Amino acid sequence: MTPVEKWAEQVRAGEVRAVSRAITAIENHAPEAEELLRLLFPHTGRAYLTGVTGAPGTGKSTLVDRLAAYHRKQHEQVGVIAVDPTSPYSGGAILGDRIRMQGHAGDAGTFIRSMATRGFLGGLARATAEVALLLDAAGKRHVLIETVGVGQDEIDIVRLADCVLVVMVPGLGDDIQNMKAGLMEIGDIFVLNKADREGADRLEQQLLAMMSLVMPRDGWHPPVLRTVASENKGIPELAETVAKFQKHFAASGERERKHVEHWKKRLIELLESRLLERALGGAGGEKRLAELAAEVAERKKDPFTAVREILTKSGLAN
Amino acid sequence: MTPVEKWAEQVRAGEVRAVSRAITAIENHAPEAEELLRLLFPHTGRAYLTGVTGAPGTGKSTLVDRLAAYHRKQHEQVGVIAVDPTSPYSGGAILGDRIRMQGHAGDAGTFIRSMATRGFLGGLARATAEVALLLDAAGKRHVLIETVGVGQDEIDIVRLADCVLVVMVPGLGDDIQNMKAGLMEIGDIFVLNKADREGADRLEQQLLAMMSLVMPRDGWHPPVLRTVASENKGIPELAETVAKFQKHFAASGERERKHVEHWKKRLIELLESRLLERALGGAGGEKRLAELAAEVAERKKDPFTAVREILTKSGLAN
Repeated sequence: MTPVEKWAEQVRAGEVRAVSRAITAIENHAPEAEELLRLLFPHTGRAYLTGVTGAPGTGKSTLVDRLAAYHRKQHEQVGVIAVDPTSPYSGGAILGDRIRMQGHAGDAGTFIRSMATRGFLGGLARATAEVALLLDAAGKRHVLIETVGVGQDEIDIVRLADCVLVVMVPGLGDDIQNMKAGLMEIGDIFVLNKADREGADRLEQQLLAMMSLVMPRDGWHPPVLRTVASENKGIPELAETVAKFQKHFAASGERERKHVEHWKKRLIELLESRLLERALGGAGGEKRLAELAAEVAERKKDPFTAVREILTKSGLAN
Repeated sequence: MTPVEKWAEQVRAGEVRAVSRAITAIENHAPEAEELLRLLFPHTGRAYLTGVTGAPGTGKSTLVDRLAAYHRKQHEQVGVIAVDPTSPYSGGAILGDRIRMQGHAGDAGTFIRSMATRGFLGGLARATAEVALLLDAAGKRHVLIETVGVGQDEIDIVRLADCVLVVMVPGLGDDIQNMKAGLMEIGDIFVLNKADREGADRLEQQLLAMMSLVMPRDGWHPPVLRTVASENKGIPELAETVAKFQKHFAASGERERKHVEHWKKRLIELLESRLLERALGGAGGEKRLAELAAEVAERKKDPFTAVREILTKSGLAN
């Protein structure tokens, strides 16, 4: 058994340190991560991915925390990937393993990992997708992916999920409401959190009014659920609604279609990184790129000619 | 003279319809757009790009409007690219040419174009960069690029600019303040707009406190300027500060370094799209990709093996 084969066995057994080490390898785009994922791949496809998104301040983390606790009480293993919005541009928290949900510390059935929103080689969406595969192989039946609902990157991430929860709270300003418009289209279930706050009724009415304009997909009308996550209110009902959604789409083929779309995109990304490696990976490739970029910046050469030169040099021109 | 050569001449002469048609070609990734940009490229590099970013509701559009009017009074030609946040996911406004700034309607010296945040072939950052080149070739000495300051895409766009203005207003909640943290690092000049509102002094103090933690770049300490754009207050001072910034960095070589970095990234993107075209562009390429994605989704094949097959088939395997 090779070291990577042994590592894969440990991941499949759910050993926390092996899983942690694998995530770090994925984050760093380390060569062994690919071999590991290749070995683990046939053992994936069993986890149900729930994406949780919403503006900052909507209480997503607490909600995810309580959902995780709910599943643990049902003796189901849970993985949590928190795409960390606290450091979006500095990259300081990239490798930090923040144990945020103190209640789960020491519970081997819950694996929690924070990921910063910047600095990943090959993109955060790729890294998140690979970490989700890994947790799937490690036997986590529920993988919860938490992101702040802003920006294309994070929309891409949340689209990985089988079911998307959009979290809203009463009392955020109109500017925030404007940002939410796009979230209407990706939400499978809407969560009205902090529902004990003033304005909850009005927000629910607004949501229902907006949703009446959205076409139901395959007979699913996205419901609005009220929760007070900090007091654990509405959590079982939310988990049951997710289960209902899962059941609804198990028959329709929608989930399969979504997965094929996902893999099309991922195969293209992989192709791109392979081909770029060949075009620029050789000795002097990076240096040649920098020289050409300087010539283009000085308008000595146009970018299309520069790219043709790289392709010719690397034997990839046709 | 070929039709594209004639088109390029018209763009260089600043003919509005030729420029409009070129932007549409860029947005659609039409083959003639590349030929056009290749012809125009030697005539670019003279425009100064100012990025304007900030949360929704900070009054960026009005500010951009007033800056454009200011430059026009100086008899300088202006181009405005507004990356439209109103329809981030539906794609409905993609090709819409929205004349938003009524004051400039009919003024041939100001060219305004809105771009939606989704649905661009090859990415919005690419399209924005190419439209900026086009406006540059069309003789616009000032190109103002307006984006909502959320998400990686838009950060990438604003990074195109030679000078980045970050717009803030008093009275947005703490949640918004949190999102702003990352903007601190990309701002060259901070604009405290709606400065007649309550809380302006407190926000200015917070900004200055935050900025004291950020290292000045090449001797430039990002200043905080107060404006009331809707009443045209503080606009000349802002334009002069941008000019001061431009002068400050003209000597230091920082702008050149930024441009070389930009072109490195753009050359990589171009390479990727060229290579992908070769790997998947042939007859049956798309169909083969869909079949492989389905096999991967069913776990009949791992993604790495699938990609190797595509490369072998297209003669790109090494």
